[in-house]
Amino acid sequence: MLHVNAQRLLADMAALAEIGATPEGGVSRPALSPADLAGRDWFRQQVEAAGLTFRQDGAGNVSAILPAADPTAWTLLCGSHLDSVPDGGRFDGALGTLAALEALRTIREARLTLPVHLEAIAFTDEEGELVGLLGSQAVAGDLTPEILAHPRGGRDKLLAGLDRAGLSETSLLGARRDPDSLLAFVEMHIEQGTRLLDAGLDLGVVTAIVGIRSFWLTFTGQAAHAGTTPLARRKDALWGAAEFIGRARDLVAEQFDPGVVNCGILHAAPGAFNIVPGRVRLALEFRHGSEATLDTMQSALLALAENVAASFRLALNIEEASRAIAAPLGERVIAALEAAADHLDLGHTRLLSFAGHDTQVMSRIVPAAMAFVPSVGGLSHNPAEFTPDDDVIHAADVLLHTLLILAEAAR
Amino acid sequence: MLHVNAQRLLADMAALAEIGATPEGGVSRPALSPADLAGRDWFRQQVEAAGLTFRQDGAGNVSAILPAADPTAWTLLCGSHLDSVPDGGRFDGALGTLAALEALRTIREARLTLPVHLEAIAFTDEEGELVGLLGSQAVAGDLTPEILAHPRGGRDKLLAGLDRAGLSETSLLGARRDPDSLLAFVEMHIEQGTRLLDAGLDLGVVTAIVGIRSFWLTFTGQAAHAGTTPLARRKDALWGAAEFIGRARDLVAEQFDPGVVNCGILHAAPGAFNIVPGRVRLALEFRHGSEATLDTMQSALLALAENVAASFRLALNIEEASRAIAAPLGERVIAALEAAADHLDLGHTRLLSFAGHDTQVMSRIVPAAMAFVPSVGGLSHNPAEFTPDDDVIHAADVLLHTLLILAEAAR
Repeated sequence: MLHVNAQRLLADMAALAEIGATPEGGVSRPALSPADLAGRDWFRQQVEAAGLTFRQDGAGNVSAILPAADPTAWTLLCGSHLDSVPDGGRFDGALGTLAALEALRTIREARLTLPVHLEAIAFTDEEGELVGLLGSQAVAGDLTPEILAHPRGGRDKLLAGLDRAGLSETSLLGARRDPDSLLAFVEMHIEQGTRLLDAGLDLGVVTAIVGIRSFWLTFTGQAAHAGTTPLARRKDALWGAAEFIGRARDLVAEQFDPGVVNCGILHAAPGAFNIVPGRVRLALEFRHGSEATLDTMQSALLALAENVAASFRLALNIEEASRAIAAPLGERVIAALEAAADHLDLGHTRLLSFAGHDTQVMSRIVPAAMAFVPSVGGLSHNPAEFTPDDDVIHAADVLLHTLLILAEAAR
Repeated sequence: MLHVNAQRLLADMAALAEIGATPEGGVSRPALSPADLAGRDWFRQQVEAAGLTFRQDGAGNVSAILPAADPTAWTLLCGSHLDSVPDGGRFDGALGTLAALEALRTIREARLTLPVHLEAIAFTDEEGELVGLLGSQAVAGDLTPEILAHPRGGRDKLLAGLDRAGLSETSLLGARRDPDSLLAFVEMHIEQGTRLLDAGLDLGVVTAIVGIRSFWLTFTGQAAHAGTTPLARRKDALWGAAEFIGRARDLVAEQFDPGVVNCGILHAAPGAFNIVPGRVRLALEFRHGSEATLDTMQSALLALAENVAASFRLALNIEEASRAIAAPLGERVIAALEAAADHLDLGHTRLLSFAGHDTQVMSRIVPAAMAFVPSVGGLSHNPAEFTPDDDVIHAADVLLHTLLILAEAAR
């Protein structure tokens, strides 16, 4: 059975982890920072040393290409990203990028003749130091001047990064690729949770990237003297918010598993030891893999908020904050990932990705899916994130066989 | 039966309300502000016009005195304060001060010969613009250089106020009076709640001013990705704080009525839609009239916090923030207030004061008590605070007869 070169892959992981290395053992390679650019240079060297074709597009996405004999063939894309959050870990993004590079090297060395171009791509700014999912949005044609006008990290940082990388807003907006030229996209990644370790499994095949909906809930009662106002007469906005927090958790746990809910921000006003809170603003966010279920969750959670507010004689204002659509992934790619795992005799399960990835953007234009390997403690965006060598190798082997399965099916 | 001059009292209330009047119909006379000083000047004019003796002590407390024939007689003190919170109401403090002035005028006009000096006093800075309960603490000998070194309103404001009033820190610290020279202290005040109106009563005789204890509770769990961390694995500090808020309310309502509890400040960190709160700081305050009950409440509430924290796998840190001792009031003065109310055929009840007053300070050195008249809607520290004329007159009549009863008993 064909396997990747495990030692070479692990050596690459170690070498890349030196670039932007932090004292805590992680890496800090925010998108288009000098460290990120150094990472891309290093990637280019590996690509060229392997006899693969290097390509950089107008969005700064860097690729290794193993061309098919027929220049008009489809391109089968795989990869992830080389950037990290500030003070992030060695595996998030790096694993998927280097597994893709290694899979291509292995196929080239095995002199397999495939009916598709293979391309291992590292997307620019997945993590959001500048825009978030920037490179994949550019490729998918989702990028607009409006998005670039209000980048999450601020205009100055975006422009400085583009300048450092020799890119421009014009080049970014020109990086769109023809969906008809692409066969599929596959991404390998560390799990940002512990479902796999908890279940003792090797691989999680992602069937959907969750949709995320968020709301500001404002409970308004009446600020009052915390001594002279009897409990029974209070309209304490914090009582309402507190009751909602607990009941929302129980509601989602009981009725919407594996969906999740979070109340991550709470502002209570006026905010004094001796004043009953008259107003509480609460940030509500919930996630699920199905838009239909998200609709039901939303109705249930907002009705709960209304009921709780009424029971404490509070007014409630609901304001939508943001919405990310759930991305169901490509069944054909999912099936290929599962077949590859079976072929390699790896234990696997289907699960949802509760975090965003370039795969969700690519899935809008091409059949796309991704798979997770275990991450100890479920850590991510953390210098201590760690995936054992065996799981790193599994990731590359699964990708290798998934590419072969998808390529063969394209004959 | 002897009654105060109702028209004169109401005219005084109206005249004083002009000083520092706000567009919303309230008054703004923060301690030792120009408006407060103007209020004192006006008070002095009324005192002298009534043929009473005016006195100002080193703490800026201003008094009307109706001397007894024997200069060595005890002094029977009554009064309240002339300062207000910024943008406060017309009744808080003013009612008790002018009821006291009116009672003395009435007794003087009736040419009653009493065995005690009568003194109607307005204490400096009851509300805390500078220090809080400043004048009464000075009289009681509770004031220390340390208190003046760290005034609640800041050193600059304190020094500017003292300068404006021709006072000094030295004069403040010298304003202590010999407790043996004092017979009792009585204060009339608007209720800062609605217990009287709810019960359809005219007068609330305060048996104790509640003690107030406050704590910072810090719940610490683990900040985590709000997507990838399953609900069952979260250590959400806000879950603990929210559960505590509801259960603390129920505990106090069920077991410690008429005590009250408040969670007035909540800081959740790190504070993002998509991050599980890892740390919550919660301000807990509770009040009761009995120190023994406060001890029990404290044990129960802190044990509840420990239990809740443990049930959510959170660490809990408890930090005492402040403590004001409950002040049981003088039974003899309470009985005199009740006898006066009976004499006037007013409906009355005993209750606790859930807010601080000069009476609690005075009660440390002399038998002291206070009584409330109704305040519509329980408003206080609010430009809309309002007490009907009849209740204003009741306050002065009750004080008048309470003074007579206490004075007669001193023969």
